[in-house]
Amino acid sequence: MSIKRLHLYFYVVVWNTLWSYCCCEPSDIELDVKAQNTHRLDSLNLLLYTFLLILTVLTIWLFKHRRLRYVHETGLAVIYGLIVGAIIRYAGSTTAVLHMSVEPDDKGREYNQSVPPDTLWLRFPNKPSTTPNKTYAYTFRGEIVDLEENEIDLKATFDPEIFFNIILPPIIFHAGYSLKRKYFFRNLGAILTYALIGTTISSFVVGAVMYGFVQLMPHLNTFTFLDLLYFGAVISATDPVTVIAIFNDLSVDVNLYALVFGESVLNDAVAIVLSGAIQHYSERYQIGSGGFEAPAFFRAVGDFVGFFSLSLFIGALMGCITAMLTKFTRVRDFPILESALFVLMSYSTFLIAEAAELTGIVAVLFCGMCQAHYTYNNLSPDSRTRTKQLFGLLNFLAENFIFSYIGVSMFTFPKHHFDVGFILASFFCAFLGRAANIYPLSFILNLGRKPKIPLQFQHMLFFAGLRGAMAFALAIRNTVSDARQRMLTTTSLLVIMTVIVLGGGTMQLLAWFKIPVGVEEEVEMLHYGGVRNTLVDTSEGSAMNAGSPSDVHERALLARVWREFDVRYVKPLLTHARPTLLETLPVCCNPVARLLTTTEQMTQETQTHSRLDSDSDLCGEERGMGSIRGGSTGGGPLGRSGPHCRFGIHNELPSSAGETQPLLRASSLPPEHGPFSSTFYSCPGPCRHTAETARLPRR
Amino acid sequence: MSIKRLHLYFYVVVWNTLWSYCCCEPSDIELDVKAQNTHRLDSLNLLLYTFLLILTVLTIWLFKHRRLRYVHETGLAVIYGLIVGAIIRYAGSTTAVLHMSVEPDDKGREYNQSVPPDTLWLRFPNKPSTTPNKTYAYTFRGEIVDLEENEIDLKATFDPEIFFNIILPPIIFHAGYSLKRKYFFRNLGAILTYALIGTTISSFVVGAVMYGFVQLMPHLNTFTFLDLLYFGAVISATDPVTVIAIFNDLSVDVNLYALVFGESVLNDAVAIVLSGAIQHYSERYQIGSGGFEAPAFFRAVGDFVGFFSLSLFIGALMGCITAMLTKFTRVRDFPILESALFVLMSYSTFLIAEAAELTGIVAVLFCGMCQAHYTYNNLSPDSRTRTKQLFGLLNFLAENFIFSYIGVSMFTFPKHHFDVGFILASFFCAFLGRAANIYPLSFILNLGRKPKIPLQFQHMLFFAGLRGAMAFALAIRNTVSDARQRMLTTTSLLVIMTVIVLGGGTMQLLAWFKIPVGVEEEVEMLHYGGVRNTLVDTSEGSAMNAGSPSDVHERALLARVWREFDVRYVKPLLTHARPTLLETLPVCCNPVARLLTTTEQMTQETQTHSRLDSDSDLCGEERGMGSIRGGSTGGGPLGRSGPHCRFGIHNELPSSAGETQPLLRASSLPPEHGPFSSTFYSCPGPCRHTAETARLPRR
Repeated sequence: MSIKRLHLYFYVVVWNTLWSYCCCEPSDIELDVKAQNTHRLDSLNLLLYTFLLILTVLTIWLFKHRRLRYVHETGLAVIYGLIVGAIIRYAGSTTAVLHMSVEPDDKGREYNQSVPPDTLWLRFPNKPSTTPNKTYAYTFRGEIVDLEENEIDLKATFDPEIFFNIILPPIIFHAGYSLKRKYFFRNLGAILTYALIGTTISSFVVGAVMYGFVQLMPHLNTFTFLDLLYFGAVISATDPVTVIAIFNDLSVDVNLYALVFGESVLNDAVAIVLSGAIQHYSERYQIGSGGFEAPAFFRAVGDFVGFFSLSLFIGALMGCITAMLTKFTRVRDFPILESALFVLMSYSTFLIAEAAELTGIVAVLFCGMCQAHYTYNNLSPDSRTRTKQLFGLLNFLAENFIFSYIGVSMFTFPKHHFDVGFILASFFCAFLGRAANIYPLSFILNLGRKPKIPLQFQHMLFFAGLRGAMAFALAIRNTVSDARQRMLTTTSLLVIMTVIVLGGGTMQLLAWFKIPVGVEEEVEMLHYGGVRNTLVDTSEGSAMNAGSPSDVHERALLARVWREFDVRYVKPLLTHARPTLLETLPVCCNPVARLLTTTEQMTQETQTHSRLDSDSDLCGEERGMGSIRGGSTGGGPLGRSGPHCRFGIHNELPSSAGETQPLLRASSLPPEHGPFSSTFYSCPGPCRHTAETARLPRR
Repeated sequence: MSIKRLHLYFYVVVWNTLWSYCCCEPSDIELDVKAQNTHRLDSLNLLLYTFLLILTVLTIWLFKHRRLRYVHETGLAVIYGLIVGAIIRYAGSTTAVLHMSVEPDDKGREYNQSVPPDTLWLRFPNKPSTTPNKTYAYTFRGEIVDLEENEIDLKATFDPEIFFNIILPPIIFHAGYSLKRKYFFRNLGAILTYALIGTTISSFVVGAVMYGFVQLMPHLNTFTFLDLLYFGAVISATDPVTVIAIFNDLSVDVNLYALVFGESVLNDAVAIVLSGAIQHYSERYQIGSGGFEAPAFFRAVGDFVGFFSLSLFIGALMGCITAMLTKFTRVRDFPILESALFVLMSYSTFLIAEAAELTGIVAVLFCGMCQAHYTYNNLSPDSRTRTKQLFGLLNFLAENFIFSYIGVSMFTFPKHHFDVGFILASFFCAFLGRAANIYPLSFILNLGRKPKIPLQFQHMLFFAGLRGAMAFALAIRNTVSDARQRMLTTTSLLVIMTVIVLGGGTMQLLAWFKIPVGVEEEVEMLHYGGVRNTLVDTSEGSAMNAGSPSDVHERALLARVWREFDVRYVKPLLTHARPTLLETLPVCCNPVARLLTTTEQMTQETQTHSRLDSDSDLCGEERGMGSIRGGSTGGGPLGRSGPHCRFGIHNELPSSAGETQPLLRASSLPPEHGPFSSTFYSCPGPCRHTAETARLPRR
């Protein structure tokens, strides 16, 4: 009976509901049935996406297995989403959502504000009127645009809050946690330029040009310039997933990789802060008055800088607190508690920033970077693999979910407003904005940069500007008004088109621009590698470890000062690294320094001779390297990445080969070494060697 | 500025909201602000629980570190929850939830059904009336009991759906996935008796006695017998977490462990199906008519059996499909895809069962058992650790979240109805029901059972009947009516009291009943061990591997037949185990058998001589053993479990020591072995030995 019901599910819901209404009294049992039906509808919604993800996973596997590269996983997720969305839309099953039109009663007329109330209280008369009337609460859901289409509303759509509170944080945290800090810092100047200045330029270009277009289309005159500037900020957030997946598979030059990845990670953060600043600007000075207001503009700029830096500060602070907690408590003895603490602290970073009216995404990004740089070194081996694998998996699932959702919601979301003129103008502006970001800034950067960014890299950066999860999440946040609905529709389409067309074309573009693939991490493109020694063991120990004098000129003074400060004070404070604070702080601070130095830190030198810091640091770096090296095993000519490559997927936090082995080898040591000895951190082989050559001469 | 705002958060929300209302037009910007405020409130809610969990984690660590055992983690979570709930309740900050009283308008009066509608449509007039009126949708939230207290409604409470769709499934799946199948199957008869028959008895005893009490309390005459029977089913679901955590730490006798864990896992499933059957019964025959109706009763019994077995079937089927998918595809080459597939298939089991109007909890429980028994053997080493660690962590977080929530909601949930009489009667009935479950059934069981269940075990089983997550989740599902609100309050209190008092007293009870702790897994209590050979290597290879003839009498014919069938047909079909189907199926089926036998399966004998099946099977078992052994490293007298014990926490899926080491050793083999060779499965040392002695003589 029940198996059959699965097929007839929607009808059963209707039937059940109607059936239960036929009975006389609205008893608890009926309300139970109602609650159960709601529950089943939720289950069915979730099931839909779970199936989509299963389908995506299996197809990705098949594509990887057969070495097809025309569509990538996010593209697949979108395409499957579109197909299923169309089926849901046109299969025409109806859920019986009962509605009642209401108007304010005598008491309700006292409500005299200009926005709809948060809750409605309905005094619902029980028909047999044996029981007293009851008051039921109803919460705000949104505007009804098309009074006929309300049924679909409840099907296969989620509260946008879910995207912001549940789906985005792990994606962004993972980006920070798995960032290849070495190459990120080496290209920091360029990345910051593209992300900070470039995204701002792009937003304004989009806003201005769109404003021009809108003036030509009289039916769109509800859009103000600020609306369009906001729209510009929304669609300036680029998404790395598809491009980076392909870059990873093909072992593209690491500096190009770092530029694309770094920029897209940071510009998500910039776009969200920028859109927030624009909102604040328009809140302060209602647009009705029109015109440009200089003080408001500067306050908006101040907001932008303030939000960004405060969010960054909270993220870094929470990362440091986690590092301190893991250093000074022995929570490491219980790996599951440690992992739970790590996850909870990271997630609370996001929530704290959001609750403080800051930007959680920025906070969680920098928290991820701090966790990788400091906390990771204090974790037990168990927790290291666990956290990396957990966030890798969460990231994979969250990303594919969001792309499936974009696909499905194209059909099921009831508030889409398709406007061909607006959409075409937006597409044009999106590319124009991207070009206005990349090319002029690259030109300026190349003036002062020794290894210049070649033109083919610039083209690749231009085409790597896919729009993705962040743009969609920003657009779906508020869809109450007509203008915002148009923005959502356009953003969705932009995401779908760029992910499928540009994402699918990445391989061809790489070949077209003659960008070499299958590059070993340290054997970079000629005009990059020429400047430096390419041997791993000598100059390329770690980004943090400066390296040979020949690349000092690349490094800004600030970066060098920070590095020095980090190694001398921050790392000894937050991790078990050597030198300890006792060695680096002036003698007068000895009591404090002793307090902040753990026994592990003091004793480990005798056992492992300062390997702890250096290779834990390098292990952090190694994670990144493992990925590229793993990807390159099947590298070489285009599309030849072997099916056996275990790191082919961009989301795979590359733990296994590079690192787990030494860690586990350590844990298989005889117990006489004691559970807390730094043998947990022993990292044999080239890793140690590199660390020693890179670090020891400095001390 | 923004840091300050964190403290003044609630006031800022109010201020912001009011401030934005002062401006004239309800523009998009204002609605953005509104959306943002909702978002911040959500963040703050989540932050609250995240902080509670962090606090719990740190305190657990401190307690473990200092070897305190008076309160356990779930108890801690509840206590912290209560404290924070009280602060929220009485700190008196108010969120400005604006409400409007409404009544049906002309169109709305056409609505003529007896239950409140799902959505309300409000035609909201924009005050300046320059723009046309808009229609907003509002969704049903529940009944308002106390019109004054509506503000708290939105604070720190979650939709009950979240418990059922998000929090419970990982807990229950983990229970199935980490079940010690060996001891579970050895005590299957007793476990099934307690869980199936015992829970039913308990529900009826509670229902009947409560009905008697209610007759004595005239103000409670709204309760029907079926209501109370439902209540009986709700509070008959016992929760293992606290007790099992302590059992694990202390290495209590494994059979007692299996009885308590097995019973509480299964009776969750029984309680949820039972409560569903009771609902169906009352749906069919509206209680208004009164009296007992035999056909409805038998249909309810049929429902119970049908729901349970169909849910079980779906769970097992999905487990088997996952096993087939992982066996016949090479998705293993990409561990993250494999892990994602595993997680998605497991979660979809829950959703499929729920969508088919079956019981997802039962399905996901048996799915977990199948995944552990079959799929686990096909997974890559990466995915094995990943899935175990992931579910271990999820389970830990979910459990502690639910207990924190129970604590917080005691104060913040607006619909509590405290009724001293009802509560006291329920406490009495809960214990009476538990006693009516354990003692008579133990007596009957002991008639036919060779190693009898001693009286002190029975007492321990009686006291291990803590109420927990499942009871709470069932009770909070529907809180619309007065009767249901009383049930929720009572259930919450029952959970809190049993978890804190009984959970905290477990240690003392164990000492009181003189139940030995620190027992090595195979050295059981005397009168158990006396029957069997206690050496691991000879008779105790694996529960599945029957063992010495002396314990054949314990095993029902059915179990033996199933075991034979499993080893000969199911395992070869679903895993890479030997013997292959080519060997076990009749010759006529050879073509089919060849199709269902993989190359790995065919070739592995030459390399590893049938170790694949046996030790993958044993590895599955080993997981369980590792846990107990790990726990016992610091065992001995009461409370002496050492702080260095890495498996002290019940939620820790004990991967590392027992198993990861051989797996990783395998993956560190030189690549000439090929990525798909069965070296992945090599399991050196005693594991192999046991497997061969146990399995080989049979073939």
